[in-house]
Amino acid sequence: MNTGVVILAAGLGKRMRSCLPKVLHPLAGRPLLAHVLETARALNPLRLIIVYGHGGEQVRAAFPDPDCLWVEQAEQRGTGNAVMQALPVLHGLDQVVVLYGDVPLIQAETLKALLALAEETPLALLTAELVDPAGYGRVVRDQQGRVLRVVEERDADEAERQIREVNTGLLVAERRHLEGWLAQIGDDNAQGEYYLTDIIALAAQAGIPIATTQPQGIHEILGVNDRQQLAELERIYQRGQAEALMRSGVTLADPDRFDLRGRLIAAPDVFIDIDVIIEGEVHLASGVRIGPYCLLKNCTIGADSEVLSHSVIEGARVGSQVRIGPFARIRPETELADAVHIGNFVEVKKSRIAQGSKANHLSYLGDAEIGLGVNIGAGTITCNYDGVNKHPTCIEDGAFIGSNTALVAPVRIGAYATIGAGSVITRDVPPDRLTLARARQVTVEGWRRPLKRE
Amino acid sequence: MNTGVVILAAGLGKRMRSCLPKVLHPLAGRPLLAHVLETARALNPLRLIIVYGHGGEQVRAAFPDPDCLWVEQAEQRGTGNAVMQALPVLHGLDQVVVLYGDVPLIQAETLKALLALAEETPLALLTAELVDPAGYGRVVRDQQGRVLRVVEERDADEAERQIREVNTGLLVAERRHLEGWLAQIGDDNAQGEYYLTDIIALAAQAGIPIATTQPQGIHEILGVNDRQQLAELERIYQRGQAEALMRSGVTLADPDRFDLRGRLIAAPDVFIDIDVIIEGEVHLASGVRIGPYCLLKNCTIGADSEVLSHSVIEGARVGSQVRIGPFARIRPETELADAVHIGNFVEVKKSRIAQGSKANHLSYLGDAEIGLGVNIGAGTITCNYDGVNKHPTCIEDGAFIGSNTALVAPVRIGAYATIGAGSVITRDVPPDRLTLARARQVTVEGWRRPLKRE
Amino acid sequence: MNTGVVILAAGLGKRMRSCLPKVLHPLAGRPLLAHVLETARALNPLRLIIVYGHGGEQVRAAFPDPDCLWVEQAEQRGTGNAVMQALPVLHGLDQVVVLYGDVPLIQAETLKALLALAEETPLALLTAELVDPAGYGRVVRDQQGRVLRVVEERDADEAERQIREVNTGLLVAERRHLEGWLAQIGDDNAQGEYYLTDIIALAAQAGIPIATTQPQGIHEILGVNDRQQLAELERIYQRGQAEALMRSGVTLADPDRFDLRGRLIAAPDVFIDIDVIIEGEVHLASGVRIGPYCLLKNCTIGADSEVLSHSVIEGARVGSQVRIGPFARIRPETELADAVHIGNFVEVKKSRIAQGSKANHLSYLGDAEIGLGVNIGAGTITCNYDGVNKHPTCIEDGAFIGSNTALVAPVRIGAYATIGAGSVITRDVPPDRLTLARARQVTVEGWRRPLKRE
Repeated sequence: MNTGVVILAAGLGKRMRSCLPKVLHPLAGRPLLAHVLETARALNPLRLIIVYGHGGEQVRAAFPDPDCLWVEQAEQRGTGNAVMQALPVLHGLDQVVVLYGDVPLIQAETLKALLALAEETPLALLTAELVDPAGYGRVVRDQQGRVLRVVEERDADEAERQIREVNTGLLVAERRHLEGWLAQIGDDNAQGEYYLTDIIALAAQAGIPIATTQPQGIHEILGVNDRQQLAELERIYQRGQAEALMRSGVTLADPDRFDLRGRLIAAPDVFIDIDVIIEGEVHLASGVRIGPYCLLKNCTIGADSEVLSHSVIEGARVGSQVRIGPFARIRPETELADAVHIGNFVEVKKSRIAQGSKANHLSYLGDAEIGLGVNIGAGTITCNYDGVNKHPTCIEDGAFIGSNTALVAPVRIGAYATIGAGSVITRDVPPDRLTLARARQVTVEGWRRPLKRE
Repeated sequence: MNTGVVILAAGLGKRMRSCLPKVLHPLAGRPLLAHVLETARALNPLRLIIVYGHGGEQVRAAFPDPDCLWVEQAEQRGTGNAVMQALPVLHGLDQVVVLYGDVPLIQAETLKALLALAEETPLALLTAELVDPAGYGRVVRDQQGRVLRVVEERDADEAERQIREVNTGLLVAERRHLEGWLAQIGDDNAQGEYYLTDIIALAAQAGIPIATTQPQGIHEILGVNDRQQLAELERIYQRGQAEALMRSGVTLADPDRFDLRGRLIAAPDVFIDIDVIIEGEVHLASGVRIGPYCLLKNCTIGADSEVLSHSVIEGARVGSQVRIGPFARIRPETELADAVHIGNFVEVKKSRIAQGSKANHLSYLGDAEIGLGVNIGAGTITCNYDGVNKHPTCIEDGAFIGSNTALVAPVRIGAYATIGAGSVITRDVPPDRLTLARARQVTVEGWRRPLKRE
Repeated sequence: MNTGVVILAAGLGKRMRSCLPKVLHPLAGRPLLAHVLETARALNPLRLIIVYGHGGEQVRAAFPDPDCLWVEQAEQRGTGNAVMQALPVLHGLDQVVVLYGDVPLIQAETLKALLALAEETPLALLTAELVDPAGYGRVVRDQQGRVLRVVEERDADEAERQIREVNTGLLVAERRHLEGWLAQIGDDNAQGEYYLTDIIALAAQAGIPIATTQPQGIHEILGVNDRQQLAELERIYQRGQAEALMRSGVTLADPDRFDLRGRLIAAPDVFIDIDVIIEGEVHLASGVRIGPYCLLKNCTIGADSEVLSHSVIEGARVGSQVRIGPFARIRPETELADAVHIGNFVEVKKSRIAQGSKANHLSYLGDAEIGLGVNIGAGTITCNYDGVNKHPTCIEDGAFIGSNTALVAPVRIGAYATIGAGSVITRDVPPDRLTLARARQVTVEGWRRPLKRE
């Protein structure tokens, strides 16, 4: 069947107290709507329609995806009205799935089960059995268990309030029927809105059997109306990701203190300590150990490498048997070959460091090309910026850079050269020899220490 | 009515295993007693009395508040005895509220409800319905629901043990009655103590109707007797603060990993990542983003500024669009104007940095006045301390400080001056020109690398 | 009675998805098997037998403990078969305790209770009452409450599935009986394995009364089959350790964000902030405060010292009233005397620093001997490594090292010497006087700033 998915994303989100449209608030680093879109796409719909309203241009700008059709709901006149706006672009489709931009954790499997039911009947609803159904519309069934209607809590009598099966709002409807039902629903209610829910009673009255199924987990149907709910779903989502990683062979020191905002491809026997955040796309090879309080973003780390505590790595390719940290910062466009050591209070930016080289203490390496087995002394700084342009530093194999050295780029240090501590190197340095730039040490006679001021 | 509040703060707190008096142990950064005092003051009492005992002088010294009257309970002879000590200073008041220095989360709203009841009757008790009442005194009522007495668990029969309504000890009593009841209670019990609880039965026996109300949350009546309970109340309190912030429009990446020890005034659309601690009074303007593992104390941060991970900011005023961190430390008396960048492994102390200036790497700026658009190279150090005195460094607009430079204060760098990398600047530098202090680079012929020692 | 303990540690641990044998996976920093061994030793057994299989050599290598007897189970033929392999080395013992290498939290107290029962009867089982017994074998008793047998879930009828008392597999058996029962059990089951459980029915059929007891906590009997269970037990264990520390007088800002992987000996009134990790053996004296995001390993910290946030201390002895951090790294073989201050972005390695000395900013001190009251300026680096050898730096009492100084070791700075900022010190420095190595400051006329490249 030709399927269209309509995602309602026009809600105001007043309780978020935000300038950002609700569906753009991030969950695990991506907008709520991005999660729903990903799930929608897993259904391979023929059309993907987003009904937008509040902050609409901002939402559209955030999703320049070519497969999305955008339909405006100019006024907030209810979910029924929202779906009505989509009708013109649903033309020619067989069935319609209705999703919500602020119900981000719905799973494709659940929707596929709903679609399977929809092959048999023109209306299939996702319902859920809640321990505490307060606030939700209840699903009223007849003696035979057939769905009759959904009654909102405020309109429910005492018996109906006891019903624990609730309407989630997610549904699959045959397009032709949906069009007919929507034409019949009215706005004669306290809010003056058109409710999509009303189509259920219309279908039942017309004698159409209404199929229902329930999600695997209640979190799938939870919506985000305020930041507490956002935080709650964030934790549920993170816990789910943590469980999946553990199943795949990753040890997490504490699954409740792990945040993945993107995608982690981790081989078995990766160890991740407490309070680690992973962002973007990160690849960790077998035996990698990530210490506590580390932040990794868009990087690849080779087998048996270790990232010690308090390190930040972004946009880097890291080889095997590398040791980074503690307190290291690796910035984008950096490549560290195998067995490189980057130590504490060291920043590396847009540099390539070849196998076995070490920069263990208090250094800044930027725009540098560093050969094999180089030793970068403590306090080494590549002066790569002259105030307007960036210049490269090249350090050839086996060079030894004495501590507290400034390498004024552009500059090249020859292979196996030694640079004396405390030098400012402004010209290229020949290989093999000792080069230094150093003032003579003198002791001043008759000098007195300064006195404490009054 | 003229109200006095008596806070019992004489308890030993033996199970804390501490040299610090129990009521001085901090919850969210403030002593337990400070929480109770704040709540007590919200009732606008005419007098505020603290009954102290163990470590009394230490407690008094911690609260030099002029509105507190201090009464000593020389011997630990029970809660009734404690309130007796306060009687002389209650003279002339109409009613007395009894609170506890180790029951820190009691809410003013709850006490106001209790005071409202006390307008009708001379004794109003705060009771609580507990799922597990073990260990608490049970409230025994007659058929008509009138309070008869409180029975301690050890004295309770099987039926009484089934009672789930417990006495919290918090109460409001008419002062004249209280005086009479206290005169009647005795110490004829296993501990040889006078129990305040005993006034309940005396009131009931005298046919006085006893009013009761219950708190909104059970946490309000929980006491701190050991460090586990302290930790438990800390978490409850922190969770409450997190919820309030989220309601006000702050996104917390994980409300269970957020600690506020003081007061946070945050505009909507502030984002706070995991494991952030806020201390003292902190103001965050709209759009501020605080990265993970950050510690902020007594600071103000302007709109759309970003504090990256692993940063510590204390006692600073930070403008808008500022970027700080990762691994930055901003110390007291620092002012960062708009669009300033402070990068990794940079410490700033008691300095003013004007708009658009940058210190991105491995620097120490202390006692510095830095103009507009200044670039501070990596490894720059203001040598502000001569061993006894601190001296200022002034860097005028547009100056460029080359990397690895030492600025020996007092010193002034003129506007748009450039300092060559690796310089030690000891005298004032004229504007616009290049100034440097640098040894000549030489390569040593015939030099050999050191050999590995045997 | 002569007791042997048999620990079954041959399991494959397929669901761990790991190259590491399951019993070597760490819990709180030690292999699962190490926890079981420690508990076993608390029973003072005459012999301690480990039945190994998968990855056996790796397991044996990890436990070179001389008191362990190793018995191989060549094929995975069930728990009964595993114990059979141990029979030869059980010769001459009176009774046998069977434990599991992947059930790490069993407590010695529980086993002692089981051993006490075993004095009266040849078979004593540890059972547990579970809210959800799904997956476990149920303990079937007769009308008189006598154990008849254990029925596996798959073989249980509806009534038996309702039983909530389950078999834990841990037991104490008289050796002679055990030998006889094991000879009778078969492998006529779906897996073709010999189940230790089968001895229970054999004992019951022989009219032998079977004693049972239950553990204090359910966690004692939980096994580790996958990394989720490992994480779960890790949290339970950590929580238990945190509780014990709080009882002893340590304040934990959040017991759920504290990790102890080793042993912490802490005096009362130690304060540990959120997200602290303790590894190895750590001693903290009274009044010590550990800030957030700190990692301490194998160190001793004296009274009233404070470790500020984001610090890493390993293998150090730290005196009293010392202040370390934030962002400090103290490495092995370091001794800091009383009242030493080590500040931000400072690394100290294999150095001794005497009372009252300070290194507050951006320094590297390695292989240094530093006297009393020394001031180490910001950016000071001990150049202790010449590429092949490490050399010592000695700084005598009262010296003042100016900022950005490189001390090229081996070198000695005399008492009360002052080193001018930005110096490279290559020769010994006399006491009391000012020594410096500094180029002349010059201003270049006619110099122009570089231009932005096209």
